[in-house]
Amino acid sequence: MNIRVAIGPSSFAAENEEPLRMLERAKCEVVQNLFGRRLTEAEIIEHLKGVDGLIAGLEPLNAKVIASAPQLKAIARVGIGVTNVDFDAAAKHEVKVSNTPDGPVDAVAEMTMTALLALCRHLVGTNADLHQGEWSKRIGTGLRGARVLLVGFGRIGRRVGELLRAFGAELTVYDPFLDDAADLSGASRANNLSDALSNADVVTLHASGTDTLIGPKEFAAMKPGALLLNSARGELVDEDAVIESLETGKIAGAWFDAFWEEPYTGPLTRFEQVLLTPHVGTYTRQCRLSMESSAVENLLRDLGIQ
Amino acid sequence: MNIRVAIGPSSFAAENEEPLRMLERAKCEVVQNLFGRRLTEAEIIEHLKGVDGLIAGLEPLNAKVIASAPQLKAIARVGIGVTNVDFDAAAKHEVKVSNTPDGPVDAVAEMTMTALLALCRHLVGTNADLHQGEWSKRIGTGLRGARVLLVGFGRIGRRVGELLRAFGAELTVYDPFLDDAADLSGASRANNLSDALSNADVVTLHASGTDTLIGPKEFAAMKPGALLLNSARGELVDEDAVIESLETGKIAGAWFDAFWEEPYTGPLTRFEQVLLTPHVGTYTRQCRLSMESSAVENLLRDLGIQ
Repeated sequence: MNIRVAIGPSSFAAENEEPLRMLERAKCEVVQNLFGRRLTEAEIIEHLKGVDGLIAGLEPLNAKVIASAPQLKAIARVGIGVTNVDFDAAAKHEVKVSNTPDGPVDAVAEMTMTALLALCRHLVGTNADLHQGEWSKRIGTGLRGARVLLVGFGRIGRRVGELLRAFGAELTVYDPFLDDAADLSGASRANNLSDALSNADVVTLHASGTDTLIGPKEFAAMKPGALLLNSARGELVDEDAVIESLETGKIAGAWFDAFWEEPYTGPLTRFEQVLLTPHVGTYTRQCRLSMESSAVENLLRDLGIQ
Repeated sequence: MNIRVAIGPSSFAAENEEPLRMLERAKCEVVQNLFGRRLTEAEIIEHLKGVDGLIAGLEPLNAKVIASAPQLKAIARVGIGVTNVDFDAAAKHEVKVSNTPDGPVDAVAEMTMTALLALCRHLVGTNADLHQGEWSKRIGTGLRGARVLLVGFGRIGRRVGELLRAFGAELTVYDPFLDDAADLSGASRANNLSDALSNADVVTLHASGTDTLIGPKEFAAMKPGALLLNSARGELVDEDAVIESLETGKIAGAWFDAFWEEPYTGPLTRFEQVLLTPHVGTYTRQCRLSMESSAVENLLRDLGIQ
């Protein structure tokens, strides 16, 4: 009997068909998401009928959905976050759950460098001016000797640190979850966030969780004219406090790729000195292929096929 | 008797006064450029009266100007290019000429990375969309495994190569002036430009001279969808040929920081997929300070003061 695999993400294999070919080579019957968008609870219940494995996006995989799919043995999330999965229900029904923690590392780190360099060199403004026929030079800032604070030193924070080191930046790490003996690859370690913020030209967030890390008190502690980068989660930053810091000029600029609500249409869109991107940290061809291929490998392993 | 030093560039020490302090500490009398712009031939002749040394920009330092300044002993250019200096006249009048070849390296290499990353991740377009309230994800390209051709492997080309290596790009170098035994730090060497162009996802120009390197034949040889980066000199690229390659979609995008005529208002401004910056490769605070300080050191050395 054929193994049936359902696809959750509407964009799966859209840029490169290799992950689909991997499933076909393993003789899986593939059930595509034909809606072109994220499935609702009712739709995913229907989608999982008679299915052995799911390549998952962020569709709701709650207790009701998992209970309704008795044949389901494995969920392989394309990406890191698995807050859409009810792990208790999965354990109860003996459904294995996997994710692809390494896939996004390069792409998110490169997007962070993209935004940081663009802010340092006023790229958006000078490019717009010159397209309008206006030749207007502005002095920028180089990265050699720039003091960068990495808030969160997991896979992505470490990779951002590696790239910054190649540019000659001076790195400080703030990560209370880090082991005392952790290798910081030459970065200094800060145990007090306020002190670390007061010394940083650039603050870049690579933490997990949904607690607010940067609120009014932290903005007050920041070095005047600093840059704030958030590729991680909107909730890490207090929205009112960042707006106020931009209005008063306390911070010189910022980049947000993650927001409190998405799609985002809030007050940050009013500020020219803020770069905004629509949660595309992982949107490179290489990253999609890497995450999708890893998810297929995880699924085949958890289904006992490979 | 005091040593008199004239300042050519109108922006000298504008961001950081340390280079002026260096001259003052050496007991030099400083004659400022009060015009706020590049001096004409008549103005620089007047400016050099009774002057021992010149901190030079790109003002005309031709035979007539040099002959009119009998007291002049040294010209210290802030920057690399010295095509504005008549070397024969300088030699005849025993005027020493120096430049600052290392100063721009980091800044130009970082600006090249800024532009490359921004093109790869569609930064300008997605940022503009989101400021307009439009949440529109576009798939980009990462740099790991990207094939980058460095045309010219002098100080700046090497530094761009170092940075690209940190991102995991695969590098090829084309530089006919390079010694056979030159250390390429792991890059491959191409002896034929057309062949090299046909394999490159990204072509970045770091050559000197004013010969056209990339004309119709070279665009024809390029890989469809490649990116072209020019931080070096406008003349290296045939303007009509790049316009045609953009119109036909042969190349996916480009960045120009150097033009055939500056300020530039030409046809490249019509193309959204082209990043344009107003010759600001060296415009970082660090770079201005480094070049200005080096020029002062060179001048003081050539005047026999230090």
